[in-house]
Amino acid sequence: MFAGAQVSLYPMTDGFVDVIVSSLSALDRYRERLRIETDDISTLIVGPPEVLFPALRDLYVAAAASRAHVVLRATLSRGCPGEPDDPICQTGALANPSEPLESRQQSALAALSEAPDCGEIARAQFSLYVMGAGDHMSEIMGCIDFLKSSGCFDRAKNFCTRLIGDSGQVFATLEQAFCQFGPPQGHVTIDLTVSANSPSIR
Amino acid sequence: MFAGAQVSLYPMTDGFVDVIVSSLSALDRYRERLRIETDDISTLIVGPPEVLFPALRDLYVAAAASRAHVVLRATLSRGCPGEPDDPICQTGALANPSEPLESRQQSALAALSEAPDCGEIARAQFSLYVMGAGDHMSEIMGCIDFLKSSGCFDRAKNFCTRLIGDSGQVFATLEQAFCQFGPPQGHVTIDLTVSANSPSIR
Repeated sequence: MFAGAQVSLYPMTDGFVDVIVSSLSALDRYRERLRIETDDISTLIVGPPEVLFPALRDLYVAAAASRAHVVLRATLSRGCPGEPDDPICQTGALANPSEPLESRQQSALAALSEAPDCGEIARAQFSLYVMGAGDHMSEIMGCIDFLKSSGCFDRAKNFCTRLIGDSGQVFATLEQAFCQFGPPQGHVTIDLTVSANSPSIR
Repeated sequence: MFAGAQVSLYPMTDGFVDVIVSSLSALDRYRERLRIETDDISTLIVGPPEVLFPALRDLYVAAAASRAHVVLRATLSRGCPGEPDDPICQTGALANPSEPLESRQQSALAALSEAPDCGEIARAQFSLYVMGAGDHMSEIMGCIDFLKSSGCFDRAKNFCTRLIGDSGQVFATLEQAFCQFGPPQGHVTIDLTVSANSPSIR
């Protein structure tokens, strides 16, 4: 299995380089369990979902704490048939294939109760894509039902769903959406935007 | 059919609001053929691909001309089964379903010769997702073959492909990727990032 994300931080300030560089230190405690490579457009982070989502959360919280208007953007993927297996991605976090949708929704909700409180609000918007054989829309609709019970559902928009809440709760909800829906051997991706300190909502 | 995008501009400058507001006027000439709605995270643009991609191109070119480091981000979708048909989305731009992959690749390349020269470089990174029945990986690999012949292929990265070139060529290439691959009645999405004036590549 191969899993990871292409991640970017967009601080809307003249001091954007400083905000990016100082926020990246939030990844230090995860570096042994992730592979990280940066170019001028994004940072590749390869690793299992149970490490990847907390790492993204801490990166977002560090950037939001700058009080600048900052957006974290990520293209997340697991199980892409075009990517090689990678031992660093070994995970026990993906749902059992034989488990019915309802039971996976319950597991996802139970996992949320362990989410930490991080003290920074996250306004997120994301799309979950499930590829390959099978009824991809039933998995997506099952995920949306879970989101509506998650405590951080904001509203549905065209092409995506909005979440709002403490960063701990929001990133835990995203992790469950990524891990519990779509077949564990399948190709599942998320297109994610998380916005902090926007002047439009002050 | 329903098609469109959730679009955001991220100018990395204290004057980000001015860059966003002034760039939006680039959409004026398209407004009759698009439905546009904005919230604090993104702008929904609904309409057919042959209008949507030139509109995104002109929005990007206007923002890049500010000379700030600016990123345009878009979640594009066509044919999502969860969205209603909308007359404004009627299009003749999608490939014929009975046409073989090779012939669609040729049509895509032919369309690129009509792309205008816009005078702003676009460094783009995107993922194409093809959902539902059928061999989604053969459509994606067929698209990647087209990209390699497009004249603006930069390189493959994990989870995405990089393009570089004049904005006219890059957005025309993205439009062809969106229209020629994946079944015309299918659900096809693109996760797109286009970066201008990054200090990392100066």
